[in-house]
Amino acid sequence: MSNGTPDTPTLDPEGGAPVAISLDEVSEIASEVRDLIEAGEEHSAWERIRLLHPADIGIIVAGLPSTSRDAMLRVMTPETVAWMLRQMNPVEAGRVGARLGSRVLTPVLQQLRPQQALDTLLRLPTRTARELTAILPRHVEETPQLEHEPDTAGSLMAGRFPAVALDDGAEAARASLRALDEDRRRFTHVFVVDGERLAGQIAMVDLALAEPDATVVQLATPVIATVTVETPAEECSRLQRHYNLTQLPVVDDEQRLVGVVAAESLLSATVEQDTQQMLRVASVSGEAVGGPLAASIRTRLPWLTVNLGTTFLAAATIALFESTLTQVVVLAAFLPVVAGQGGIGGTQTLTLIVRSIALGELVGVRARQLLVREAVLGLVHGIWLGVLVAVIAVAWQGNPGLGLVLGIAMLGNMVIAGTVGAAVPLALRRIGVDPAVASAVIVTTATDVLGFRLYLARARAVFYLRGSRAW
Amino acid sequence: MSNGTPDTPTLDPEGGAPVAISLDEVSEIASEVRDLIEAGEEHSAWERIRLLHPADIGIIVAGLPSTSRDAMLRVMTPETVAWMLRQMNPVEAGRVGARLGSRVLTPVLQQLRPQQALDTLLRLPTRTARELTAILPRHVEETPQLEHEPDTAGSLMAGRFPAVALDDGAEAARASLRALDEDRRRFTHVFVVDGERLAGQIAMVDLALAEPDATVVQLATPVIATVTVETPAEECSRLQRHYNLTQLPVVDDEQRLVGVVAAESLLSATVEQDTQQMLRVASVSGEAVGGPLAASIRTRLPWLTVNLGTTFLAAATIALFESTLTQVVVLAAFLPVVAGQGGIGGTQTLTLIVRSIALGELVGVRARQLLVREAVLGLVHGIWLGVLVAVIAVAWQGNPGLGLVLGIAMLGNMVIAGTVGAAVPLALRRIGVDPAVASAVIVTTATDVLGFRLYLARARAVFYLRGSRAW
Repeated sequence: MSNGTPDTPTLDPEGGAPVAISLDEVSEIASEVRDLIEAGEEHSAWERIRLLHPADIGIIVAGLPSTSRDAMLRVMTPETVAWMLRQMNPVEAGRVGARLGSRVLTPVLQQLRPQQALDTLLRLPTRTARELTAILPRHVEETPQLEHEPDTAGSLMAGRFPAVALDDGAEAARASLRALDEDRRRFTHVFVVDGERLAGQIAMVDLALAEPDATVVQLATPVIATVTVETPAEECSRLQRHYNLTQLPVVDDEQRLVGVVAAESLLSATVEQDTQQMLRVASVSGEAVGGPLAASIRTRLPWLTVNLGTTFLAAATIALFESTLTQVVVLAAFLPVVAGQGGIGGTQTLTLIVRSIALGELVGVRARQLLVREAVLGLVHGIWLGVLVAVIAVAWQGNPGLGLVLGIAMLGNMVIAGTVGAAVPLALRRIGVDPAVASAVIVTTATDVLGFRLYLARARAVFYLRGSRAW
Repeated sequence: MSNGTPDTPTLDPEGGAPVAISLDEVSEIASEVRDLIEAGEEHSAWERIRLLHPADIGIIVAGLPSTSRDAMLRVMTPETVAWMLRQMNPVEAGRVGARLGSRVLTPVLQQLRPQQALDTLLRLPTRTARELTAILPRHVEETPQLEHEPDTAGSLMAGRFPAVALDDGAEAARASLRALDEDRRRFTHVFVVDGERLAGQIAMVDLALAEPDATVVQLATPVIATVTVETPAEECSRLQRHYNLTQLPVVDDEQRLVGVVAAESLLSATVEQDTQQMLRVASVSGEAVGGPLAASIRTRLPWLTVNLGTTFLAAATIALFESTLTQVVVLAAFLPVVAGQGGIGGTQTLTLIVRSIALGELVGVRARQLLVREAVLGLVHGIWLGVLVAVIAVAWQGNPGLGLVLGIAMLGNMVIAGTVGAAVPLALRRIGVDPAVASAVIVTTATDVLGFRLYLARARAVFYLRGSRAW
């Protein structure tokens, strides 16, 4: 039942409730707000946005330059900021909370009731939340979720959830929901416990349709998947996707129900996992576009440094053929052609395989089958690209030998790219390393080094050049 | 209420219901099944898997080599295959259906009741489903969802959904759910209509807690977001994530409710959009690891060909400095170092920006702010990498001039990488092009061409070499 608090708008024929707006509309309003604040009219700025959905208010405020943001937050009051964070999805609330910083968030939390402060705290990034608990009153400090590692079921779960005893009835299940107040909206099931052990679940729709005298045993269905507090968020997401689940009960070693990963937290975690995976392939995982520069440097620089080492492998390969290059210096011009195509081809294959592994699509598929497929694809691509590159090189440089060498190197490197692009992520997974993290650097190093070697060695042979130092 | 059909297992203390298993367990069972079928024991193979969750049966069967798969499908019967597809999430069912092909799926659909056939059909990829409708009886042909473009709300929506009139009561809302039989489990809300126009929604938990005499007006809350049949799946996913929604009502121009994108379809669509975005950045979007070779070639080869053109731009840049290279041939060895680092740095930036755009994180953030941030990051990285590369080059080749040239080129190219890596996706978005599609090739071309030019022009100046043909 809707009860008229700001947390649950009632149906209002005058249309007072916030509605979704497009990203373009949000951008437009954001720029109006920025102009108003810069003109010193932060009260008008707040009037402009206060009827929007909290999710939109959140991203507009977080996107403001820091001095404008401070002016806006003074108008908004700590209660409003807390309300906004509680209404946003957990991932966006965490991002916005991180941008606001603990200086802004401390008064926000201090003016809230303990339960509300806790709810708000749980939407913040774990690091910020831990910082804040230190300055908060005792009762808020006791937040079991903060004890768990980030990106585990323990950090995602709600400690308050609807539960009913196996020997009870529908009315008891309803009472467990009523006791949660607004939080009841986060759950799609009431969990059934036998003693403390998880015994089943009642879908909300079944409870809605239950006869008044229905028993829990009649209404309950089996739980398909449970997790523990240590289960990684990634596995939670896989369970959600693969088994079509809306929420996950968290149990301890003795199958006692200790928490529930609610629907919105589970969805947010899935989106976050997908984002992190995509960023890991590019080695920028853990960063945010608006985050501190130091964090970005810490994430990217080690990786760039490792990559520098691998490009020197490529440089060393070329250096081996210095005498070949001295004799036919135009060969140097085509080095990026050979390396570039191999790199792109390898990256295509590895991205496809990395994503398929993450989605559990490769279960039961033999690795050999995938390797052969990608090698054959590389061969087909290599034949087409090899002929094309040979024709262009001959037309441009008028040198049939160069065309032949380039064509062969291209063909060979595309087969290498397909094979290595598939083999590296599959091998990394087998030894328990996340293929998203390390595949790209290994694959591009392989296509560079092997591509250059193939190209320059072939050139030396075709042009009957003096032997170089090695190979 | 659970009713004992195979679609809703009842709570069974003996533990007969399928439970979630880990990917490793699935792999192990898949390999046992493969061995059993190869030994001609497909009945034992089916016994091994028939009590698993349908989602696991699906991926195990789809992963089998084609002859083993055919043997397995003969044992499974068309009814079982249809049941399996209906129980899987829409995306996985679509992928498994695509692997089974229309030869297997035709008898599956023909032996089902019309409504079941339709439900199964709607899980298949749009192309396969359209093929199959041609050979099916008339009533199944009339599937409005298949008329809509793939990846729109129209193709994702369910045409049957729970709806109740604004002047009705809780009991009518319950009746609308009962009328849907098993399908009711797909919905988290009952929709409220005034005439045919969408007027609100009732959350399932509110219906579960409603007094017997509650009216719809008392229970209803406003709808936050609606979509039309043409709304892209990408925008549906954004609405779900940003506003914390579980399902989306689909309305026509006059706000008449025509369908509902149910929770499982919406989640599947979100995961699918994330996957496609990740694959688009690597230009392998639309492919599946087990799909036909021809489809993979169609996806990748045009892109590889475009990329070949851009690597020739890099080659042309080097060719301009042929006389410089002739005089100091060791310069050629360091070409991949300059290009490789610039390419990695640019890709890191663009991946972060592309993903932030997709998640709506950049709303209200000024483009200039992002460009400056990435340029500064590039500068910091460039200083470190430039010093490092200079030291290594001097140590290796004993040539301080080379170290100086490389250091300057590295510094410059990292700044270029940061600036271009941020500017290209932002500019593409502004002109309405999907930044995931085209950013990578533009950014790596820019870092290659500008990096080589910077490196070789600097080398010519530092070594007082003869002027080359241009620049």
